[in-house]
Amino acid sequence: MIPEDSVGIVKPQTYTFAQNEPFMLESGAMLSPVTLAYETYGELNAAASNAILICHALSGSDHAAGYHEGEEKPGWWEDCIGPGKAFDTNRFFVICSNVLGSCYGSTGPTALNPETGKPYGLRFPVITIGDMVRAQVKLIDRLGIDQLFCVAGGSMGGMQVLEWAAHHPERVKAAIPLATTGRHSPMLIALSEVGRQAIYADPKWQAGDYYDKPQKPDDGLAVARMVGHITYLSDESMQMKFGRRLQNREKYGFEFQTEFQVESYLKYNGNNFTRRFDANSYLYVTKAMDYFDLTEPTGTLAGSFVHSADIKFLVVSFTSDWLYPTYHSKDMVKALTAVGADVTFLDIESSWGHDAFLLEVDTMTQLLGSFLERLWQEENEDQRLKINGVAREQS
Amino acid sequence: MIPEDSVGIVKPQTYTFAQNEPFMLESGAMLSPVTLAYETYGELNAAASNAILICHALSGSDHAAGYHEGEEKPGWWEDCIGPGKAFDTNRFFVICSNVLGSCYGSTGPTALNPETGKPYGLRFPVITIGDMVRAQVKLIDRLGIDQLFCVAGGSMGGMQVLEWAAHHPERVKAAIPLATTGRHSPMLIALSEVGRQAIYADPKWQAGDYYDKPQKPDDGLAVARMVGHITYLSDESMQMKFGRRLQNREKYGFEFQTEFQVESYLKYNGNNFTRRFDANSYLYVTKAMDYFDLTEPTGTLAGSFVHSADIKFLVVSFTSDWLYPTYHSKDMVKALTAVGADVTFLDIESSWGHDAFLLEVDTMTQLLGSFLERLWQEENEDQRLKINGVAREQS
Repeated sequence: MIPEDSVGIVKPQTYTFAQNEPFMLESGAMLSPVTLAYETYGELNAAASNAILICHALSGSDHAAGYHEGEEKPGWWEDCIGPGKAFDTNRFFVICSNVLGSCYGSTGPTALNPETGKPYGLRFPVITIGDMVRAQVKLIDRLGIDQLFCVAGGSMGGMQVLEWAAHHPERVKAAIPLATTGRHSPMLIALSEVGRQAIYADPKWQAGDYYDKPQKPDDGLAVARMVGHITYLSDESMQMKFGRRLQNREKYGFEFQTEFQVESYLKYNGNNFTRRFDANSYLYVTKAMDYFDLTEPTGTLAGSFVHSADIKFLVVSFTSDWLYPTYHSKDMVKALTAVGADVTFLDIESSWGHDAFLLEVDTMTQLLGSFLERLWQEENEDQRLKINGVAREQS
Repeated sequence: MIPEDSVGIVKPQTYTFAQNEPFMLESGAMLSPVTLAYETYGELNAAASNAILICHALSGSDHAAGYHEGEEKPGWWEDCIGPGKAFDTNRFFVICSNVLGSCYGSTGPTALNPETGKPYGLRFPVITIGDMVRAQVKLIDRLGIDQLFCVAGGSMGGMQVLEWAAHHPERVKAAIPLATTGRHSPMLIALSEVGRQAIYADPKWQAGDYYDKPQKPDDGLAVARMVGHITYLSDESMQMKFGRRLQNREKYGFEFQTEFQVESYLKYNGNNFTRRFDANSYLYVTKAMDYFDLTEPTGTLAGSFVHSADIKFLVVSFTSDWLYPTYHSKDMVKALTAVGADVTFLDIESSWGHDAFLLEVDTMTQLLGSFLERLWQEENEDQRLKINGVAREQS
């Protein structure tokens, strides 16, 4: 049964570009063609003024809401996208596209390399968050949208939001970066690299050429994912969720089996991930995050936001998120304030760690919903004033 | 050149017991024989009242201070053990032994299984922190020491300190648990398990039977160690130590080479570790830590310390240690205070994360040195009073 507040059955779509003229990447490499998988929810209005782009995190996909035909699990942000939800599809046209380099239908290392007729593997060029966003710009162009009403996302999704605000400011009215950073820290790079090293260490990885082999580097990818899962939680949320409880046993077994619930959770999620994600894509997407640094090239975050003063920002961090601690968001807020942007900032009290941006549904619904509602009313008021010809200079 | 404040050239020693009567482990398994590798620094006095036992952490060894013949690198706690240092060898007889299950000369999975004549591998029984400490008790007995003047250690070393205090209180006058916990948290278990999974995932691990094979599970062990190294640092210390600096290059390479200094650090330390540590020992020692829980069997930490009231405690935590956060030490202090023990507690301001207990040398020297000095003076005063027959009841 599909709940009433869901967007219901959705159909994935694709948009392919750069067939003739290649898409140039930040590295200078060329890519041709480029396909983006995407989904949309709600209706684009006649003025094309109600579009919201949702940007997904590391392991996410374009399937942000609703149900695919025959599937029982909804999209990854079902809690926040739908009629009456934070991103209200009664009012907004919501778009989510799978990032360049990922493995959910967008061009990445699993795609066929036109030069060889085989999957790219490591022949796929290294991409950046900037490349991901410039591909999204192409999609928005194609959908006939001059300016997004809002671009929103958490974690790596938040980096894309900041990239839009910094480098395509005229295309964005409002931006909601959640649980993210303007500059990937050395700790984040270290955690990425450990995941990559786990994949490299798997002999089935075969330097990325495993697509025609009977086995994939699942063991390495599972270890990488387990590291990730630890970082998405917090000390406190692990205490609440698992404590030192044992899984299906009452006493220590004094053996190397999965004994503690937290071990079972990690193993389950690690293995599960290998059924839905590609090891090479994990390398490319984490590398793109590591390169993300909006203090370049000017040396300050504010330097990247000099043209972003007209964007309305809602910046959100979570108190127990040790992966993207609050100070990252505060640095962002300082930089945005310095350039004169209108910034609302909230550091939400939560014990759920980095995962909070997906789990604190009530808070997010209220916060994002009222931010978008207020902006929408202001915009429409402005429009009405303009249309009625009563907009006049104020002394 | 050996510095003047070093204990100088030291010779590793071993003590073997349980040749006839097997050593019974907490699991109920029997081990025979058991060898402990150990080193000593300074001289045991005639009353055998000046002995300090140092307990090492996960990857440590009995080589805590001084230099092995022909080697240029001193023991792991050289900064704190020696003449005039925190553990002053002019006054104290300092002992450090390699824990049961480890691979620096004490009995563990690398040792020969007398039943097969081959290394134990996974046939070695799973051990606990309690087992490690009961083996240390045998060594102390052998050395003719009724009561240790002090037992001290950080991280897993601190767990051994607490185990001594809880289960062998009459053998300990003072205890210094540093950067540790009375109860391994689910986050710590999760981090242990990821390291173990990285080892299991290495096909060269061969279910632990790799000792006669040409290759060892170095790749898996290196990944486990890299995870460890991230947790020993802090967000702040990584910013200071590495920032986003690149290693031997000026621009991003847009390739999957080691580019950032923090990546290079992890890789170097991960690979280095495989030359000095055994993968199976990593499994056994981390498992022992995961089992550590002094709230068992009574349900409270205080329940384990009911006989520890006469021990003088110096409990130390570090503000940026997110692996063993301060609240673990505070819980310990509450429990020890509840049973009436004399506790000094310090939460030291440091940005070095968990590694701080090894790096904050000046602070540690002053703090530990003065704690031990004060106790030593008190003890000797008591002794003098007793000897002179002037000890009398005070109203």
